[in-house]
Amino acid sequence: MRLRPEICGERLLRRLSDFAEIGRTSAGGVNRQALSKEDRAARHLLADLARARGFKVFQDPIANLFLRREGRNPMRPPMLIGSHLDSQPTGGRFDGALGTLAAFEVLEAVEDQGYETEAAIEVVAWTNEEGSRFTPGVMGSMTFVGAAHPNDFRSVVSGEGESFSQELTATLAALPEAIMRPLGTPISAYLELHIEQGPSLEREGLAAGIVTAVQGTRWLTVTFSGSAGHAGTTSLAYRRDPMVAATLALNRLQMSIMPQDDDARLTVGRFSAHPGSINAIPDRVTFTIDIRHPDASTLTAIDASVRATCEEAALSQQCSVGISTSFDMPPGWFSKVMTDRIEAAAQALGLPYKRMISGAFHDALFVARVAPAAMIFVPCRDGISHNEAEYVEPADVINGARLLLEATLGCML
Amino acid sequence: MRLRPEICGERLLRRLSDFAEIGRTSAGGVNRQALSKEDRAARHLLADLARARGFKVFQDPIANLFLRREGRNPMRPPMLIGSHLDSQPTGGRFDGALGTLAAFEVLEAVEDQGYETEAAIEVVAWTNEEGSRFTPGVMGSMTFVGAAHPNDFRSVVSGEGESFSQELTATLAALPEAIMRPLGTPISAYLELHIEQGPSLEREGLAAGIVTAVQGTRWLTVTFSGSAGHAGTTSLAYRRDPMVAATLALNRLQMSIMPQDDDARLTVGRFSAHPGSINAIPDRVTFTIDIRHPDASTLTAIDASVRATCEEAALSQQCSVGISTSFDMPPGWFSKVMTDRIEAAAQALGLPYKRMISGAFHDALFVARVAPAAMIFVPCRDGISHNEAEYVEPADVINGARLLLEATLGCML
Repeated sequence: MRLRPEICGERLLRRLSDFAEIGRTSAGGVNRQALSKEDRAARHLLADLARARGFKVFQDPIANLFLRREGRNPMRPPMLIGSHLDSQPTGGRFDGALGTLAAFEVLEAVEDQGYETEAAIEVVAWTNEEGSRFTPGVMGSMTFVGAAHPNDFRSVVSGEGESFSQELTATLAALPEAIMRPLGTPISAYLELHIEQGPSLEREGLAAGIVTAVQGTRWLTVTFSGSAGHAGTTSLAYRRDPMVAATLALNRLQMSIMPQDDDARLTVGRFSAHPGSINAIPDRVTFTIDIRHPDASTLTAIDASVRATCEEAALSQQCSVGISTSFDMPPGWFSKVMTDRIEAAAQALGLPYKRMISGAFHDALFVARVAPAAMIFVPCRDGISHNEAEYVEPADVINGARLLLEATLGCML
Repeated sequence: MRLRPEICGERLLRRLSDFAEIGRTSAGGVNRQALSKEDRAARHLLADLARARGFKVFQDPIANLFLRREGRNPMRPPMLIGSHLDSQPTGGRFDGALGTLAAFEVLEAVEDQGYETEAAIEVVAWTNEEGSRFTPGVMGSMTFVGAAHPNDFRSVVSGEGESFSQELTATLAALPEAIMRPLGTPISAYLELHIEQGPSLEREGLAAGIVTAVQGTRWLTVTFSGSAGHAGTTSLAYRRDPMVAATLALNRLQMSIMPQDDDARLTVGRFSAHPGSINAIPDRVTFTIDIRHPDASTLTAIDASVRATCEEAALSQQCSVGISTSFDMPPGWFSKVMTDRIEAAAQALGLPYKRMISGAFHDALFVARVAPAAMIFVPCRDGISHNEAEYVEPADVINGARLLLEATLGCML
């Protein structure tokens, strides 16, 4: 009988600390944006660790990084596990890094025991998940599955004027020991561990969330236009106030969409008034709405409701309204076979879990287009993420890695 | 019998054009902010015109500029007429300049006929009415009546870092021919012509508004604080969304305060959300509220209603709210004797007029503290002001000046 591989918690925690030094911020977070020199340093460290264990290192034309532990049958497509190493500009130590390093710990744990698998296991670090330096995010996985081509991003430039193409070329060149391979090499399945980025697991005292689906997301930009006017001299009869129209529409949406549907999300994160004088009725008010729902048709219905409510509010204030869509990602469902195997693994380990829907989108959503895929969430303190204060309890790190190991082996049966 | 003075419309219109060249913007407006070199150039031109007609030129320590045509009895306090020469950064050609130049036209018209008055008539150009470069506005009149002292503004700095004190000193020094005199020299009365800065006169086809009072104004800054969170992962039960609290409160206020009271004004001109990410629930939402009412106790009641509504909305969303007052000017009533004399003048000239309340505050509001004061409004196109598109029909300019002349002489009886 083969010895079952075991996660080495101490090693994983040390790795998390080591990687948190790369791009570390004074507030204890991480600034390791995609294709930056910090990102390259993190890739370099991971590749070195892999080679020290005898794993093969590959990269593809969009700089996705793969670390492969060979199986008995090199012709079978590998089981892929991983996440990303890039961060937000004032990001945390766990978003992406935890999933990547837990996956690498799985690979090491298997190697520690000389545990043979039929197919290879590969760890992946996807390029530019965050999209904060170069837009859009999830570039690596999107390109891997053929939903985009590296050339599509040729003209992308960062806020600081840096060229995506140049940074991509430099990043690829910085890892000459990696074997270049084509985009979209076949895989048998994909499994990603990630922090929840929300508070529900922590508040419910659960060790893991088994992610069955990722919500669809649409980003709308709404602009109400009316007439500028003097705050003191313009009576109600003469006002065409876009601020009144905007708050009327938003109040109606906020009091209906989420209260009527537990799965719906509606968030207004940006709001501005032009020209922005204390004593002037604005001529223009602009805000964003982020709407999400796991069901595609309901998402479309919410979108329609936003439009109708805004148009009605505009009409009531003799204003006009324009609505544009800046991002539209349909919902995605993960593999039932995979979520069942993860559930069996959680039960075998005695870890409290729930099935849940992801409110954030992830690389796994794209990978699910080409292979069975699923995700495991672990709790993060107060649900805080995209923030230097992001934190995961060591016990949750280790339990997450244990579940990832068990589920990875389970999915390879 | 003395010949009655007559306004020379052509001269007044030419003067308006000449002054509109000083600080002229490419869009045909004026950028002649207080104590700037453009403001100094305008003061210089006015002083030159005055000296050419034999009028005396004075300035006081806050750089209010006075042009005096002597009366039969130099010991009697003068009748004061005028307005201001400074503008908003993208201001119009008429706000302030019209009242100052119409007053100067009155002085010239009286001089043209050698018309003797018992008391002197003085034209005033108040310093820094707008308050856009150096805060607060109405500095000149406020200081003239003793409600402030020039030293109070010693540390005031513009947005560009320029010192108010230095610019004041330089402005005073730029007009060495003006005789320096103390603040608050006695006056018998004050009359100011100004554009309405609202649409009512134009829409009602009236030539003039006789201003009986100026609304009180309070500026509030409201900040709702809640919890930042991920737009996708945070369900309604876990949200403490300050945006929801803000739009709830604003919608309630906007649907009640103005609809229930024709004299009330409530305007939200600035609005921002922090950190301002499309996909993040904001942790903080800040906006301004400008409230106005001609009745002091009602203004206080509206203020209380704003506070109660915001607190209730905050409570309903488990948010907190802070409200600060950045400006508080009580309502002011003008002299009944003076408004009656203006009315008699309008009737004598056959000009259609109405009595009205000013929604904007003006220098006259402060001057009314030390002498009988009143204002005459003339229509401006579409009520547009504080805007390069500001426009007054030549006929309205001339009728306004005729009424100012008639009323000035009427008030001196």
